[in-house]
Amino acid sequence: MPKKDAFYPDWYHRVPPEKSYRSIFKWGYPDTFKHPNRRLYALMKETFAMTDDDFRVKRNTGDEKVSFDYPVKLSTAQLDQLRAIVGAENVLTDDYSRLRVAYGKMIYDLIRLREKKIENLPDAVVRPRSKEDVQALVRFCHAEKIPLTVFSGGSSVMRGTECPKGGISLEMGVHMKRILKLNPVNQTVTVEPGITGPDLEDALRDAPRRFPGAPHRYTCGHLPQSFHGSTVGGWVVTRGAGQNSTYYGKIEDLVVCQEYITPAGEIATREYPASATGPDLDQVMIGSEGTFGVLVAVTLKIFRYMPENTRRFSFIFKDYPSALEAVREVSQGEFGLPSVFRLSDPEETDVAMRLYGVEGTALDKLLRLLGYRPGERCLLLGTADGERGFARHVARMIGRICRRHGALPTTGYVTRRWEHGRFLDPYLREDLQDYGIIIDTLECAVNWDSLERIWREVRAYCKARPRTICMSHSSHFYPQGTNLYFIFVARMDAGEYLRYQAGVIDAIFKAGAALSHHHGIGRMLAPWYESFMGPQQMAVLRALKKHFDPHNIMNPGGTLALDLPDEKKRM
Amino acid sequence: MPKKDAFYPDWYHRVPPEKSYRSIFKWGYPDTFKHPNRRLYALMKETFAMTDDDFRVKRNTGDEKVSFDYPVKLSTAQLDQLRAIVGAENVLTDDYSRLRVAYGKMIYDLIRLREKKIENLPDAVVRPRSKEDVQALVRFCHAEKIPLTVFSGGSSVMRGTECPKGGISLEMGVHMKRILKLNPVNQTVTVEPGITGPDLEDALRDAPRRFPGAPHRYTCGHLPQSFHGSTVGGWVVTRGAGQNSTYYGKIEDLVVCQEYITPAGEIATREYPASATGPDLDQVMIGSEGTFGVLVAVTLKIFRYMPENTRRFSFIFKDYPSALEAVREVSQGEFGLPSVFRLSDPEETDVAMRLYGVEGTALDKLLRLLGYRPGERCLLLGTADGERGFARHVARMIGRICRRHGALPTTGYVTRRWEHGRFLDPYLREDLQDYGIIIDTLECAVNWDSLERIWREVRAYCKARPRTICMSHSSHFYPQGTNLYFIFVARMDAGEYLRYQAGVIDAIFKAGAALSHHHGIGRMLAPWYESFMGPQQMAVLRALKKHFDPHNIMNPGGTLALDLPDEKKRM
Repeated sequence: MPKKDAFYPDWYHRVPPEKSYRSIFKWGYPDTFKHPNRRLYALMKETFAMTDDDFRVKRNTGDEKVSFDYPVKLSTAQLDQLRAIVGAENVLTDDYSRLRVAYGKMIYDLIRLREKKIENLPDAVVRPRSKEDVQALVRFCHAEKIPLTVFSGGSSVMRGTECPKGGISLEMGVHMKRILKLNPVNQTVTVEPGITGPDLEDALRDAPRRFPGAPHRYTCGHLPQSFHGSTVGGWVVTRGAGQNSTYYGKIEDLVVCQEYITPAGEIATREYPASATGPDLDQVMIGSEGTFGVLVAVTLKIFRYMPENTRRFSFIFKDYPSALEAVREVSQGEFGLPSVFRLSDPEETDVAMRLYGVEGTALDKLLRLLGYRPGERCLLLGTADGERGFARHVARMIGRICRRHGALPTTGYVTRRWEHGRFLDPYLREDLQDYGIIIDTLECAVNWDSLERIWREVRAYCKARPRTICMSHSSHFYPQGTNLYFIFVARMDAGEYLRYQAGVIDAIFKAGAALSHHHGIGRMLAPWYESFMGPQQMAVLRALKKHFDPHNIMNPGGTLALDLPDEKKRM
Repeated sequence: MPKKDAFYPDWYHRVPPEKSYRSIFKWGYPDTFKHPNRRLYALMKETFAMTDDDFRVKRNTGDEKVSFDYPVKLSTAQLDQLRAIVGAENVLTDDYSRLRVAYGKMIYDLIRLREKKIENLPDAVVRPRSKEDVQALVRFCHAEKIPLTVFSGGSSVMRGTECPKGGISLEMGVHMKRILKLNPVNQTVTVEPGITGPDLEDALRDAPRRFPGAPHRYTCGHLPQSFHGSTVGGWVVTRGAGQNSTYYGKIEDLVVCQEYITPAGEIATREYPASATGPDLDQVMIGSEGTFGVLVAVTLKIFRYMPENTRRFSFIFKDYPSALEAVREVSQGEFGLPSVFRLSDPEETDVAMRLYGVEGTALDKLLRLLGYRPGERCLLLGTADGERGFARHVARMIGRICRRHGALPTTGYVTRRWEHGRFLDPYLREDLQDYGIIIDTLECAVNWDSLERIWREVRAYCKARPRTICMSHSSHFYPQGTNLYFIFVARMDAGEYLRYQAGVIDAIFKAGAALSHHHGIGRMLAPWYESFMGPQQMAVLRALKKHFDPHNIMNPGGTLALDLPDEKKRM
């Protein structure tokens, strides 16, 4: 345990200056922070061979006001026409507004903002007020062949909101963030795409007060780690998942119907619980990442909010194989599925033990004595949700299965600790980067029978670099498989980061995993996407693209590899 | 209760003559029958104002050997090329073989076969032996612009297998019915499309013996009423549902990945439990009803077969509204979903009470006394599946909710009675039709908030015709709604049947229900389909069609309304 009076960095802890670069790349809420605790600080120094001196001066904090020279290529006449559609106050061409919507929250975005590398900006930011505005904008851009990209929460880590072809960026989160309807009979909510996760969730949990006639409190059940900064529109068009998706489902399971404005007209699907009326157009539009059209309304399933029923549990397994057997048995057990469910591999478990202060304690000694050894042991934590008896039964069955596989119960306390940090961990990124350390994540989906091999192969690549932390966990479970989420932490510069990150993606691709479980493809994975999909499948997407957007104005410039030049293709 | 020695019709009870019309239109297995019992016989006479005399002579039994004059339009050279691809023994041009694959099991198909109305036949029936055969056939037909339609189980009630443009019909159930792989780790099975429900289910239930290394007995969980005569391929391409779908899911929830041969090449999706890699091509191909390509392999989720855990229950409600409240509460209760779940409306309940011999008994009198009156009361029956404690809890919660809504438990006996007949009821159709009585079904999907109105509107149309039984039930439940399955029974001729049936579809369409919950669209619903989908949505399907099948050879002639002439459009 590091001493209390030892040197501890002066982490950045203030709302970033207005209109500064940092105000753009800072994660989440402007006034919310999570700093590395003393244990993590010690771990970093040790792992990356750094000293206190390396943490005395922050680099590239991005406190400067945004300012650059990047020409607006739209004509005055075009800008005037845009102003005529949405009102002058909703067309912005200043540097800050244009930069703010171009980048997301991928590490490379943060690097570029710190280094003031300005590229791929829109010519103007347009804030539509309504579906009718979007219709007029899409019609205008289609006629004038002006690229149109959509920006909503800005939490993309896939370079999905960049505008390499210029044009306009539609900022959805300013006006188009209304709840259009709550239907307590069907248990659905209809919203505009710009509403944030917290705004929607707050309204649902408060439903009896906010919506006359709503008999219950509700939850949307979709709580991604990016919750604070994500919007419903982003969830849908990227095919996202929340951390409780094992119980509530991924977003494609939650969407009931939708409305998109495309250059080929309005695509509206109808609200039914299920049907056998041909191909499912909802599943064509979900995951289209802005390349087919602009989402303007979506109806989602909602669920009863019953936190009083939540059961929390955690277990330590002796090794990864036995833990994997247990979680597969849970996933295939047909007694109901847990809500949060999260299995850490040995390295992530060791880091967690260290950060939670378990390592080196009497408890740790006991654990080792019982055969739960560092470098081998694995932490599983989770919750069961739903009706009281259901949740109790799920938790009980999980306990039974885990114990049968040699796990030691470590109580719901660990889960509460995790819950406390569930939306806060990404806030650490800026602190680390202030001192040249990068923490990044890549995730994929795997079947049970290939999980261990894929984990081993990707990890082998990651760990071939010395002084690199590579943790991984599975956090979304299905009877047929799960996801693998890799987190690497290392001291590296921008150039090495880009090479290393591409190497991890290569490893995931070559191992045969699905390129993404819930982050989407964007421009970041586009170089691998066509090889992943295969030429015939890619041709179907291109046929759809041609139908919806014959002038290629919708989010052009590489997203989903629809117009990626051959030389950019990686595999 | 009708007297035992009273006249009782001499129902048709023998395997139909070989190659007869009846051998084609007979439902299910050739040697399996279900005749109307004496109570149903009495009900029919009473309802339709018929006498014993009306049941002395059968009409149009179709015992004659199939024979007609319907030209083969393919050239000798083309037929030779087909023989070169699949072998001469797998190319059939005789009358019987061509007729057998053209019609399904819709009432109009039966009428046409009884009346020897021969139309929409293929020129030749081709029996592919493998994916490679299908590839060569599709390539050949594409080059020669020969229509290609697929026939598998032949249980379609949507006119999906007719060949109005001639060409070839691919009979998948002869060779392409293999189980390609059982994967007990991922809990999936990969099959060819021609395998029947019973063949697949038998193999899965017998897995430990048939597949080395399979540790469990399995079920595919997909048990439609057409089980005896349906195939996996049909389930997938029509977007079907089994009677236990409330627990196991519809087929679109069960498909993990697939392979199709299209004129534009092979479309293969990849096996992952979930992903965020763009639009979902599986959901583009599911429900495409043979218009995009030929399904050659599909991987389905499987489940543990645990019949020992099944809990059966049934309840009588005082009225339809209270029953609907209860089933909605169950569907939204988050304690797990039942497996079979089936709520009959008052008319279906009354018919069931009569057929099961309850009406007029002491039990019936007691029920009436307690306020469960004919014309109002509703029967709910079902089962809970899954792990033992889960099934028990689901059944217990359902009981609690039903009782709270004033229902009387009527035990699992009723459910067992239903289970006994679950795949047999369609066998009744031929008996009734032998005496001029038609029993037909139409089904749709509805949200909770429109269910009662849609039920009332469709029923109003059905019951406007005197002496017509119209029963309905909901049998597939979701948190957001359910299906409505209408069964009408009446004495009517072919002309009136077609007008009446179109009127029911009109009523469903105008009421705003989804045109189909699990039967698909085919050619039968095609006249309403474009209005149901809307022009923009239809344009997306046409763009896909043009991509996959630019020469319009795949199941041409109206399926999914892709090439329906304007004059055939109903709405």
